[in-house]
Amino acid sequence: MTADPSAPMAAIDPLRLRVFSLNCWGIRYLSKHCSQRYAMVAELLSREGYDIVLLQEVWSEKDYLFLKNKLACSHPHSHYFKSGVIGSGLATFSKHRINDAFLYCYSLNGYPYMVHQGDWFGGKAVGMVILEIGRLKAHVYLTHLHAEYSRERDTYLPHRVVQAWELQHFIRHTSSGADVVVLGGDLNMHPQDLGTRLLMASTGLRDCYTETDVFDGCEDGITLIADNCFINKKDLVPFEKGIRIDYILIKGSSRVELQCESMSTTQGSVPDQPHPYSDHEALSVALRLGPSGPQAGGEDGGSGPDCAAGRVAELVDLVTEARTEVKVGLHCAERRRYTAARTGMMGVALLLLEVVMAAVPWLGGPQPFPSASFYLLGALGLASLLVTSMLYLFYTTELKALQGAEDHMRLAVGSLQERLRGVAMKRPPLEAEE
Amino acid sequence: MTADPSAPMAAIDPLRLRVFSLNCWGIRYLSKHCSQRYAMVAELLSREGYDIVLLQEVWSEKDYLFLKNKLACSHPHSHYFKSGVIGSGLATFSKHRINDAFLYCYSLNGYPYMVHQGDWFGGKAVGMVILEIGRLKAHVYLTHLHAEYSRERDTYLPHRVVQAWELQHFIRHTSSGADVVVLGGDLNMHPQDLGTRLLMASTGLRDCYTETDVFDGCEDGITLIADNCFINKKDLVPFEKGIRIDYILIKGSSRVELQCESMSTTQGSVPDQPHPYSDHEALSVALRLGPSGPQAGGEDGGSGPDCAAGRVAELVDLVTEARTEVKVGLHCAERRRYTAARTGMMGVALLLLEVVMAAVPWLGGPQPFPSASFYLLGALGLASLLVTSMLYLFYTTELKALQGAEDHMRLAVGSLQERLRGVAMKRPPLEAEE
Repeated sequence: MTADPSAPMAAIDPLRLRVFSLNCWGIRYLSKHCSQRYAMVAELLSREGYDIVLLQEVWSEKDYLFLKNKLACSHPHSHYFKSGVIGSGLATFSKHRINDAFLYCYSLNGYPYMVHQGDWFGGKAVGMVILEIGRLKAHVYLTHLHAEYSRERDTYLPHRVVQAWELQHFIRHTSSGADVVVLGGDLNMHPQDLGTRLLMASTGLRDCYTETDVFDGCEDGITLIADNCFINKKDLVPFEKGIRIDYILIKGSSRVELQCESMSTTQGSVPDQPHPYSDHEALSVALRLGPSGPQAGGEDGGSGPDCAAGRVAELVDLVTEARTEVKVGLHCAERRRYTAARTGMMGVALLLLEVVMAAVPWLGGPQPFPSASFYLLGALGLASLLVTSMLYLFYTTELKALQGAEDHMRLAVGSLQERLRGVAMKRPPLEAEE
Repeated sequence: MTADPSAPMAAIDPLRLRVFSLNCWGIRYLSKHCSQRYAMVAELLSREGYDIVLLQEVWSEKDYLFLKNKLACSHPHSHYFKSGVIGSGLATFSKHRINDAFLYCYSLNGYPYMVHQGDWFGGKAVGMVILEIGRLKAHVYLTHLHAEYSRERDTYLPHRVVQAWELQHFIRHTSSGADVVVLGGDLNMHPQDLGTRLLMASTGLRDCYTETDVFDGCEDGITLIADNCFINKKDLVPFEKGIRIDYILIKGSSRVELQCESMSTTQGSVPDQPHPYSDHEALSVALRLGPSGPQAGGEDGGSGPDCAAGRVAELVDLVTEARTEVKVGLHCAERRRYTAARTGMMGVALLLLEVVMAAVPWLGGPQPFPSASFYLLGALGLASLLVTSMLYLFYTTELKALQGAEDHMRLAVGSLQERLRGVAMKRPPLEAEE
């Protein structure tokens, strides 16, 4: 809002920006050494003085306020995103003024009855803050997607794919006025997973880990590592050393070129400290901002119709793959809703049986059942009817959200194919083509 | 995506765009003459051939598919937004290609136990479609906010204010790359209501009704009128003739100047037809698009620091007013949650009483109560515990959403005040100031 878009490109001095991201694992009374770890994080942040700090799983507002208090001097600007029952757990601290904030809650986020996993209660979302960095406008995104729990039987894959789909949509549509785009967070997806590829291909965001030449951290950039004492090694199988699921992704604009100069991650234990900062490793990057070269572009960026066609064709494949995954989710959700409806019908049948049983003594017959069984059966019928009604409603919203995502994906594929035809028409005719 | 942003402004030929908006009141089996009215709407739309059609309360997908089928020739492009349990009810038809779509569901939308009102089940949202109109990119928004029900005791006011707040946020953040912005729908707010003023002041959208010189419709542009046979006149009190709650709002860009040439609304009955199209009146506007003049701007648009300062000061007042409304909502939600918790405690007390009653015969005492009362009391305790637990969870999410909105508003006020200071510093010093 305050950045002057008419400022000449050359007026942007090379600028450095340091970004930090950490999943804090901050479940009060349940996560180990929670308050000590927050104190360690606060000490690290105020010492290092990163420009932008992106924290996930700050589940308690008290912990956010503790950090806000501790970082009042080093990071005077902050925002805490509230959603769901517990909150989104997303908190951001900044050296630079936060001009605006916006939250988008994902339409799918697991199941409320999986209380022990807690994802549904967290109200997973993507938060955006708009920072004023000198004369530049940075759109900084912060998110945490649904956890995987089991790689072999990943029942949440359709939900996570829809979250990645909504995330890329949100970033694409809200970042068009930005000079700099940064996304940080725990995506709960491996680098080669469908959601990661879809996110990066459609937004044009680049992975700091693969981009930088200067990296100091664990092998393969893993951020959930076997050497972290809070990690149960069995949970990592078949990835013995660990997995990379936390990211910092970046993108420049037609005005600003953005490069990742260096990246580092923690490696489990912290020198002179009794515990690691969290069960996840912390990521930090140093970014270099400079005036954009003449070839830099927006989303399409590249050069030549062949290059553009290749990118669009890749996107068509990715969205089609995502659509297939969503269709699998739709099939499962339909089956679950059908089961809920059938169990509800059993509840109705039990209640009808109760009515018949109650009618027998009134019509002069003997009491066919002991009264305890009569009332227990009634309670069972009523309870099953109540629970299945609510499940039916919930699965209907799941179905609607999945159908909505599938419709959007179909529309996107059609639109991309139209673009592909447009690109093909721009291409000069090949010589001697059979 | 496909519009070429480098096209010179002068290359935009003056272009006409006709937009139609209607709340269809399409509750199957409940709304009167539903299928006949859809047939009438289909006939009108294919005859008139509006460029963009924005429909609300198309609750059944079957009705959307009926319209899609009927309008296949006149409006080959369409999108239906799915959300919530029933759906958002939002459908759009277009003569121009729809390149992309995006849905934002409001975080607050009434209460699930108000089943007869049904707002919660509808999953109210704002849908956006990106249209390719020649070389221009039009962002078209379509929404339907929570109904008012009672003007005197409007318990949903905080929810509607938060919806208007989120709506303006969504439009501001997703429209920066657009040449043309159009919002149509049933806002369920009068022109002078806080939400309407907030929406228009913060987005820069202009009301077609107040802007056009050529208007053909009901007095004061009312869209819910006493002369419509589906309207219960008692519901309109104290506005005997009717109210204006449906809108088409527009905004150009630095490239395109957008003007409303004419506007018309239906006036209850339809010539040669047995029924009106709906309980709401239909709106249609003719817009004129031309190349932007040298003074046209984006959001700030105006001229001179005084003008800009005036607008920012107005926004500060509006956001502060909205914050007060949200605080009232917060207070009520806290009270409701407290009541739910207290009733839940009564359920727990009942269950404890049951345990004591069950223990008496086991300990050798007499059976203190007839067994029917015993089981009924148990069922009552359990049911109240279940219901209040769910209500407690629901009110917690309501609180979180209200707190989130209030935090955003506080941030926005701070940021606006900072802008105001910036504008004040740009103003030339006044002469002879004391």
